[in-house]
Amino acid sequence: MTPQTAPQWQLTRWFNGKPTTVEDHRGKVIVLGAFQMLCPGCVSHGLPQLQRVRETFSEQDVAVIGLHTVFEHHAAMTPVSLEAFLMEYRYTFPVAVDAHDDPLGASVTMKRYGLRGTPSLVLIDRGGLVRHSSFGRDPDLQLGALLAQLVGETAGDMRTVPKAEHVGMCSVDGECS
Amino acid sequence: MTPQTAPQWQLTRWFNGKPTTVEDHRGKVIVLGAFQMLCPGCVSHGLPQLQRVRETFSEQDVAVIGLHTVFEHHAAMTPVSLEAFLMEYRYTFPVAVDAHDDPLGASVTMKRYGLRGTPSLVLIDRGGLVRHSSFGRDPDLQLGALLAQLVGETAGDMRTVPKAEHVGMCSVDGECS
Amino acid sequence: MTPQTAPQWQLTRWFNGKPTTVEDHRGKVIVLGAFQMLCPGCVSHGLPQLQRVRETFSEQDVAVIGLHTVFEHHAAMTPVSLEAFLMEYRYTFPVAVDAHDDPLGASVTMKRYGLRGTPSLVLIDRGGLVRHSSFGRDPDLQLGALLAQLVGETAGDMRTVPKAEHVGMCSVDGECS
Amino acid sequence: MTPQTAPQWQLTRWFNGKPTTVEDHRGKVIVLGAFQMLCPGCVSHGLPQLQRVRETFSEQDVAVIGLHTVFEHHAAMTPVSLEAFLMEYRYTFPVAVDAHDDPLGASVTMKRYGLRGTPSLVLIDRGGLVRHSSFGRDPDLQLGALLAQLVGETAGDMRTVPKAEHVGMCSVDGECS
Repeated sequence: MTPQTAPQWQLTRWFNGKPTTVEDHRGKVIVLGAFQMLCPGCVSHGLPQLQRVRETFSEQDVAVIGLHTVFEHHAAMTPVSLEAFLMEYRYTFPVAVDAHDDPLGASVTMKRYGLRGTPSLVLIDRGGLVRHSSFGRDPDLQLGALLAQLVGETAGDMRTVPKAEHVGMCSVDGECS
Repeated sequence: MTPQTAPQWQLTRWFNGKPTTVEDHRGKVIVLGAFQMLCPGCVSHGLPQLQRVRETFSEQDVAVIGLHTVFEHHAAMTPVSLEAFLMEYRYTFPVAVDAHDDPLGASVTMKRYGLRGTPSLVLIDRGGLVRHSSFGRDPDLQLGALLAQLVGETAGDMRTVPKAEHVGMCSVDGECS
Repeated sequence: MTPQTAPQWQLTRWFNGKPTTVEDHRGKVIVLGAFQMLCPGCVSHGLPQLQRVRETFSEQDVAVIGLHTVFEHHAAMTPVSLEAFLMEYRYTFPVAVDAHDDPLGASVTMKRYGLRGTPSLVLIDRGGLVRHSSFGRDPDLQLGALLAQLVGETAGDMRTVPKAEHVGMCSVDGECS
Repeated sequence: MTPQTAPQWQLTRWFNGKPTTVEDHRGKVIVLGAFQMLCPGCVSHGLPQLQRVRETFSEQDVAVIGLHTVFEHHAAMTPVSLEAFLMEYRYTFPVAVDAHDDPLGASVTMKRYGLRGTPSLVLIDRGGLVRHSSFGRDPDLQLGALLAQLVGETAGDMRTVPKAEHVGMCSVDGECS
């Protein structure tokens, strides 16, 4: 299937950054994470993963954008609630509110990208083509691989932040900890 | 720092597969995971991650090998115990027992690769060069990116098994589940 | 310290049940769980624990009541948002909204019980005395013990729902699963 | 069903303490946790739970004893391996090795108590009667309740170590952390 050009998004409000268009990120890989602040799977998995992507890849290579695509309980997930939510959960990547032209259905950008629900993940390559779209969760190992592929396509070296975590290791010259 | 050629490993016993040399895997990326069956961090993180790598990447691109590098409690972690351990935990990738020339210190292959303890991870590229070595845990997102980089260097398309997981998603045309 | 009589609560809105007073539950142990729907620790630990208490103890012995004690971001955590939150997370125990007489400070019932923040847990015994109050998280093992103590004080047999979970067990007459 | 008197155990080796009989603990509640060091569910759930019981209840009220009931892979789970295992995982409660009279079947004490596999949990009351036996996992909330019931039956006050954990709480006079 031939990749399609990423549709323009139509967003009404931005948090953690200024409004941008798809074109503003041309040259970078874009990670678009659709969520609803009251969607349990988004809170437990989708949003923490977006934050991990932000902290693992360089901003020069990868743009991470959260997309608040409310399609139910509209009065419960207003921008005022979203702002407090982002503050309490300490998310630092840009988050934007999707526009609506149908109060009972999916939001505008969500429909343009053909998303079926939340959490959903869309990867746009450096050239502006949609290369991956999923509903549910992509395991970190696979998402890391997909991103590295897209980052490596037209650029030189990838700039990650390599860091091994401490997980109850046993050292040759000491005990386990 | 210039990458070094991967030292030959010296292994005395193989499970889940026949003995191989570094050269046997030439053309593939090799993931070498050093562990001890009684190292808590290896059991909870290192080994499950190796299994995830095995299930995410194609065997045509990536070889996964567990390296049992015992440097303490030798009598407690014999091949007999290791075999039962691998069976009970249902690991399917090849695992080999590192040789010893110093009963009180690190095992042979471990020393050749300069590993400091367990769990440790070594990535060898398609050309046989050591490109990454870490002690502790590499987060999945970063390990996936590193592997995709190495896989993509000299080959054509990467063959992963993309699959979105079900994590309490909210569907446009239904309720949250 | 002598236990004090549980102060009356002042609640403005009830979900998952009709309004009740402290006296209505006289004869039962009351578990009062104070939370805010945008408090991360409440979402990840406090509220799931209240649901587990509801499913473990009999309604004849233990009453579980969630108390929405908003003391920040009031406009973000209105009853409309709370109702959607409870539906999406599928909580089935009664939840009530605490009254306010000071828009900038703690809510009324929260102050009467001397709670410092969210999540907080209050245990009231069968006789209407406050026997436990904590800020943070009580481990399940300890909470279970505290509840059994209070349940057992004046009643006969405790009615729990004993059920062993399946956790990768190894059976004598079969393999591990 | 009338509770039965706890059968005497027949144990060949003790770690983390001296050999004891059932009678030695008369007056205390006994938590007997059957496990195998290579049983995945024991490593991930059963043994950590025993350690939590040890740290939550007073030694004056509750005795915790791990029972190594090997019924498969005998050569892989010898006392030498078990000793290293207990050291690496830092378990501090007494652990004993069950005797064997049938190399192919269940161990002696395991059969006397009618246990079906690992992990299993047996609770013996202050008077020496078996009051609970389960195969799999008892949730902490329920186990805490069961223990408190047994502890409270003939004794005065229960001596726990109440401690609220820090879990991303939101404080009235500060921010969430």
